[in-house]
Amino acid sequence: MNLDHTFAALADPIRRAIVSRLAAGDATVLELAEPFDVSLPAISKHLKVLERAGLITRGKDAQRRPCSLRGESLSAVVEWAEHTQRAWEERFDRLDVHLREMQQTQAQEKKHGRKKQ
Amino acid sequence: MNLDHTFAALADPIRRAIVSRLAAGDATVLELAEPFDVSLPAISKHLKVLERAGLITRGKDAQRRPCSLRGESLSAVVEWAEHTQRAWEERFDRLDVHLREMQQTQAQEKKHGRKKQ
Repeated sequence: MNLDHTFAALADPIRRAIVSRLAAGDATVLELAEPFDVSLPAISKHLKVLERAGLITRGKDAQRRPCSLRGESLSAVVEWAEHTQRAWEERFDRLDVHLREMQQTQAQEKKHGRKKQ
Repeated sequence: MNLDHTFAALADPIRRAIVSRLAAGDATVLELAEPFDVSLPAISKHLKVLERAGLITRGKDAQRRPCSLRGESLSAVVEWAEHTQRAWEERFDRLDVHLREMQQTQAQEKKHGRKKQ
């Protein structure tokens, strides 16, 4: 699994829509193409990109070749994004604690009249 | 905000590392370049991609131009990925319920001896 390929594959609205559709259940190329105003070869090309990125697998049944989402690739994206967002939120939590400490120190200084020194 | 640009910008290990670093706090180009074995112009180029994708903003201070993460762009990625993963998990929950119902039906049929009919 390679996050570079996963993110690159998801940088397209049709490919993200295909991934969302497959999250709800397996589907054939015809089923996947149905909501889009694009040709079947174009959909097949998108599927190839998703397959190479490890986001989907395709069944061996030569006629239908149903597509399935690979949960672990999606999980890797969720993990990276959530981890980074947690760091971002913790940063503000730390800032909050710091501001509260500063306010307390100021309040105490005021109480003890140190401000006038 | 455009998820296409956001995902495309994150399809690079150095750019993801820069985003992770900025999640912990603002940083200058020099600070961001430090852990990587790449030239400053290369880092600047990565920062331009991240800025165009709306993932970071840069300060106006001409000398330092500190970089900051834009939380809302990261949130959009988290939201899309979590939403899709939830659909994926719900699919297995539904499958679970379905299997349990099938097992109960079979058990009841066995109990009532319908299997022999």
